[in-house]
Amino acid sequence: MKIAQVAPLFESIPPKGYGGTERIVSYLTEELVRCGHDVTLFGSGDSVTAAKLVAAVPKSIRQELYNQAWAAYHTIQLDLVSELADSFDVIHFHTDYLHFPIARLRHVPYLTTMHGRLDLPELTCIFNRFSDTPLVSISASQRTPLPWVNWIDTIYHGLPPDLYSYGPGDGNYFLFLGRMSPEKRPDRAISIARQCGVHLYMAAKVDKADQAYFDQIIKPMLGGPMVSYLGEVGEKEKCELLQGARALLFPIDWPEPFGLVLIEALACGTPVVAYRHGSTVEVLEHGVTGFLVSDEEEAVEAARNITLLDRKQCREAFERRFTVAQMASRYLQAYENVMNMQNPKPDLHAVTQRRNRERKEVSRISTGKF
Amino acid sequence: MKIAQVAPLFESIPPKGYGGTERIVSYLTEELVRCGHDVTLFGSGDSVTAAKLVAAVPKSIRQELYNQAWAAYHTIQLDLVSELADSFDVIHFHTDYLHFPIARLRHVPYLTTMHGRLDLPELTCIFNRFSDTPLVSISASQRTPLPWVNWIDTIYHGLPPDLYSYGPGDGNYFLFLGRMSPEKRPDRAISIARQCGVHLYMAAKVDKADQAYFDQIIKPMLGGPMVSYLGEVGEKEKCELLQGARALLFPIDWPEPFGLVLIEALACGTPVVAYRHGSTVEVLEHGVTGFLVSDEEEAVEAARNITLLDRKQCREAFERRFTVAQMASRYLQAYENVMNMQNPKPDLHAVTQRRNRERKEVSRISTGKF
Repeated sequence: MKIAQVAPLFESIPPKGYGGTERIVSYLTEELVRCGHDVTLFGSGDSVTAAKLVAAVPKSIRQELYNQAWAAYHTIQLDLVSELADSFDVIHFHTDYLHFPIARLRHVPYLTTMHGRLDLPELTCIFNRFSDTPLVSISASQRTPLPWVNWIDTIYHGLPPDLYSYGPGDGNYFLFLGRMSPEKRPDRAISIARQCGVHLYMAAKVDKADQAYFDQIIKPMLGGPMVSYLGEVGEKEKCELLQGARALLFPIDWPEPFGLVLIEALACGTPVVAYRHGSTVEVLEHGVTGFLVSDEEEAVEAARNITLLDRKQCREAFERRFTVAQMASRYLQAYENVMNMQNPKPDLHAVTQRRNRERKEVSRISTGKF
Repeated sequence: MKIAQVAPLFESIPPKGYGGTERIVSYLTEELVRCGHDVTLFGSGDSVTAAKLVAAVPKSIRQELYNQAWAAYHTIQLDLVSELADSFDVIHFHTDYLHFPIARLRHVPYLTTMHGRLDLPELTCIFNRFSDTPLVSISASQRTPLPWVNWIDTIYHGLPPDLYSYGPGDGNYFLFLGRMSPEKRPDRAISIARQCGVHLYMAAKVDKADQAYFDQIIKPMLGGPMVSYLGEVGEKEKCELLQGARALLFPIDWPEPFGLVLIEALACGTPVVAYRHGSTVEVLEHGVTGFLVSDEEEAVEAARNITLLDRKQCREAFERRFTVAQMASRYLQAYENVMNMQNPKPDLHAVTQRRNRERKEVSRISTGKF
């Protein structure tokens, strides 16, 4: 199959450091190539891939996130995709919504994986307009704010099976991994570990947007003997930390769309103490691969009992549900589905209907009845 | 003629306060309607126009400038334009480059007015890719960083003739108008006025991005009797300030693309002391409607001699060159030009050539020779 993968340009594929979306695009792309498909990756020029690479920019543009220049580079990428569209059987977008107007003009089968949280006000506006665009969610719970859109599947993230390998969890510590942000609740992780009397390692990056939160709330909590803050760590160090951890603490306070770190933990055999929010109830099996809790009291109780769980079963759950082979196979099925949809030509009746509605809207607005 | 005007959504059309692009879109739109054309304005829902209004958002989104949500609303607008494109003879974009990929798929004659500075690195990348898209500059000097693109005309801004009316300039003060930003050099204006011993009124807004500059550099200079800072003023107050001003001080330090305030001053009969940067040498006639200077010594000399100039000639220059009727008539000619271009179908040879180049690029990149 001739497949295009269209990635955001903020990080290289795979990313040098943090970057869940870019890592998944990378794993999926390499697996599809391995399976013999003809894959073209649209990403930044510092990406590394066995696919063909089409680069709108020579280097990833993380630093442009806070001005408007990022839109220029993504516009260039979009035009490259548009021009080469006819050479693909299917186009898989990972770029939120920027491509929607172009994608529906190009008559090439496509789908979009939504990687982020969906409870933002602008997304309601976008999906009121683009309710027909085919979307894949990364958890069932992710869909909650946007039930009316054209969800065609939920496909969980997957990892290469040997990227994170089984470890004994004999390090006598808990682990907090990810971002130091209010919704990840590192403060809760500290409190839970302290109440258990177990050491906590925190390996987490601090985004520019979270610097004040880190300085004012978290930094003062890091004093004392029971907590070690390690900053942002690389893939290898993260794996070693997980292999030795008694449990991963995941006391989040937001609708986590997936939580890649959950399956990284499971791949290492490490069970998770997670709050019931967003995807955690789908990814984890309560009493098997971790404990799902609702408050700090339950979390402390769960963390104390975590050694009752069988680490081998955690790894088995990972192999059963969250490998890149499973993810790629599910996506290939989704590609087949959009290719088989009876939409080789635009639905003229629907177009006419919508156009009439639009015209009415124009005249309504122009007469001031907004 | 059936004309679409596509405006940015950051401010209403016309804007409530500062917003040069949005004001020009408003003046042009209303003049085209007045001339009997069938005009549709794509803008925020709080815009006020005699044209038909198609609103992607109910209210302008100035507050979204610093996160990514602005891109969502502009994506919706772009899709509205795309859907209604066939109902227009010509589409006139004022939205930088976001629409380029869509515009070239739609086969409806279009052009884009570039309203901003063009010496930003991302624009070089954009126009390497979109060198064929028809563009209008707002001054000849604005084009300097991008000489290779498809400039089809330079069209100066114009104002409704009675919006700013002639005044005697008898207020015995100089005026600084616009934004408190480093490139506008309010510090120079203060220094020039002080050396002349003439009072300076400063009517200027402070953008979020310029708050630190204002607090640290300008605020400390505002003490003392010769300078009055008025904050951001409305249209009426601005007009009265200009009518009474002996001169407008415009000591800029950047490639000003046009400088709307220059022609507002001329409309009131107020001559300008301007640094030779960007558009000033085109908009002003040295020794007639103002003085063009290169340093502060020249600026002080010019400001001292400003009453030698005839205010009536300033107003006459405005009426001769910078009314909305002239701007609209030039744009109508530009619309005719793009409509007459022999491009009803895409140039297949060029497309094939480019595609081959792209393919080579793909294989070059994929073999790592980036």
